[in-house]
Amino acid sequence: MYNFAAGPAVLPAEVLRQVQSELISYKNSGMSVMEISHRSSLYTEMEAEAEADLRKLMSIPEDYDVLFLQGGATLQFAMAPLNLANRTRRIGFVDTGHWSQRAEEEAKLVTGIKAEVVASGEASNYTELPQAVELTENYDYLHLTLNNTIEGTMYKELPYTGKVPLVGDLSSNILGQEYNVTDFGMIYAGAQKNIGPAGLTVVVVKHSFFKDAPQLPAMLSYAKQAAKHSALNTPPVFAIYVAGLVFKWLVQQGGVAQMQQRNEAKAQLLYDYLDASQLFKSPVKKQWRSTTNVPFITGNQELDQRFIAQAQSNGLVNLKGHRLVGGMRASLYNAFPRTGVEKLVEFMQTFEETVRRTR
Amino acid sequence: MYNFAAGPAVLPAEVLRQVQSELISYKNSGMSVMEISHRSSLYTEMEAEAEADLRKLMSIPEDYDVLFLQGGATLQFAMAPLNLANRTRRIGFVDTGHWSQRAEEEAKLVTGIKAEVVASGEASNYTELPQAVELTENYDYLHLTLNNTIEGTMYKELPYTGKVPLVGDLSSNILGQEYNVTDFGMIYAGAQKNIGPAGLTVVVVKHSFFKDAPQLPAMLSYAKQAAKHSALNTPPVFAIYVAGLVFKWLVQQGGVAQMQQRNEAKAQLLYDYLDASQLFKSPVKKQWRSTTNVPFITGNQELDQRFIAQAQSNGLVNLKGHRLVGGMRASLYNAFPRTGVEKLVEFMQTFEETVRRTR
Repeated sequence: MYNFAAGPAVLPAEVLRQVQSELISYKNSGMSVMEISHRSSLYTEMEAEAEADLRKLMSIPEDYDVLFLQGGATLQFAMAPLNLANRTRRIGFVDTGHWSQRAEEEAKLVTGIKAEVVASGEASNYTELPQAVELTENYDYLHLTLNNTIEGTMYKELPYTGKVPLVGDLSSNILGQEYNVTDFGMIYAGAQKNIGPAGLTVVVVKHSFFKDAPQLPAMLSYAKQAAKHSALNTPPVFAIYVAGLVFKWLVQQGGVAQMQQRNEAKAQLLYDYLDASQLFKSPVKKQWRSTTNVPFITGNQELDQRFIAQAQSNGLVNLKGHRLVGGMRASLYNAFPRTGVEKLVEFMQTFEETVRRTR
Repeated sequence: MYNFAAGPAVLPAEVLRQVQSELISYKNSGMSVMEISHRSSLYTEMEAEAEADLRKLMSIPEDYDVLFLQGGATLQFAMAPLNLANRTRRIGFVDTGHWSQRAEEEAKLVTGIKAEVVASGEASNYTELPQAVELTENYDYLHLTLNNTIEGTMYKELPYTGKVPLVGDLSSNILGQEYNVTDFGMIYAGAQKNIGPAGLTVVVVKHSFFKDAPQLPAMLSYAKQAAKHSALNTPPVFAIYVAGLVFKWLVQQGGVAQMQQRNEAKAQLLYDYLDASQLFKSPVKKQWRSTTNVPFITGNQELDQRFIAQAQSNGLVNLKGHRLVGGMRASLYNAFPRTGVEKLVEFMQTFEETVRRTR
């Protein structure tokens, strides 16, 4: 069975087996990892290791804090403005589709914030991304969604090299695509695609970036969370534990460069087939194609539905596209095996052959 | 081994075994529960069952929403004022110790909110609780911490019967002590004591109570979360799943009335020994003693430390009191077995005997 879900998504089989084997007694403590105290060394050592491994994987420098928070990327849509937009209170947004728009909408709900679109892919119906973003006005930061899970587009290179800090939503390609953390003032990612279970959000933020933040409720404050190493109150211990195991797995696999190479090879298998196919096609221009989320369509809704249903009964599950765009979508995150893509392409060929014969 | 931790705390052994057995393939789906989509029927049915079981356990009427949120009770300290303090913007607080003070501090960090202490247990050093609370001013709500995890005090009856809505922090005795939900406008509880793993917060709130809330960022809005059945973005699926199993376990055990009876019996074993002991004592007046968190002291720090260390090596772990009050603390939540209390009392007797003989 292969799970193509966009998130929550497939986890490494080795990680699931380890979680299962030590679920009742974590490190022979006689307690489940769900039962250990967040003030115990069992927890603090686990958290420190997870952070150290993430720093290694992403080459995160010491002047950046790593925070393990809750509330998903959607809470960061509000927390980033609350903590980081302190001077001009204006934020520039690159409109790359649904999730960038959600980020902008949420920023506008923060009192006193002006959120402005500075570049948009709308003219191409988001099948292309704004290539070079230049800011003519002064903003506290520029917000960028690096990978667009619904539209299937990805920035492999940053479109911006100006002086205003970049805030990057890496929810759907963190640890699957190489970026320089130092190109950003802050990055954030919900865990449930490339990191671990839902209920954890990773924030990497330059310490000096939030120094002018106002007094905020504790759970909404980067400064207060950083001061307490994300254990200001009881952190999501289990989710951090699983994320830590995924980080170790990634180190063993060769790190982010290796994952990126594999992800590119997996995606290429599917894109090559799509470009050759008479039935299926990718709606996205080649230059902007995501390696982690591959939408495709037949152009015929009834046929799309039949394909999804037949794929499902052949063990290729969660291929239905996002309700906003329809069609199909194959999400190929780090833990998704190459054999799954091979099976999918094989099944698509058979399906296409059948459609051709019955026409 | 017995785990007396205040939270994250012990979970029912049956629940842990079920989680372990189906960790790789949830309901024979071929996917871990961490990998299922929150838009799939696998998830929505699981969430609906968890909600239905919680409604049954607590007799929650239809005009109350049940929300499965993130961020712990500490985020609710800010979300309650943001959503519920809309008319006078004044909130009354009953000061029952550390966590009620934290709730008040966080409320004050919400713009425009006046948080005022209307009754306090300070004169008794929080070994007693304010008995009858009467409000002479007009507040949007009165905030009450029903069980004080650090001080070991508990309201078994509500001290307030006025017209202003009550907001109750039930983090450390939800589902272990019977209350009428209809006596409250809103209750909340972090999951990691009596419900499930850390990373989940249960909110039960009367629908009409938040109807005047301003436009808020989505993750901070009860209205928006309620409209989407807590799946506004990816919810903490795994934590909700375990909580649902705990709710089923509680239904099988006979519900909250039965748990309360067992908790009272477990606590009584320990309190009876403490009251008879020449060495150990409870700092809390009898009327106010918590059934879920039992602090005790010898009056001698060196002796306390020796006791904690020896208990630990005898398999009685996490008996160290909170750093703010020192001494010892035994947390006896629903899933904590009676035999653990018996073993503790036995060990305390032996320890006391040894101290007496060597004096």
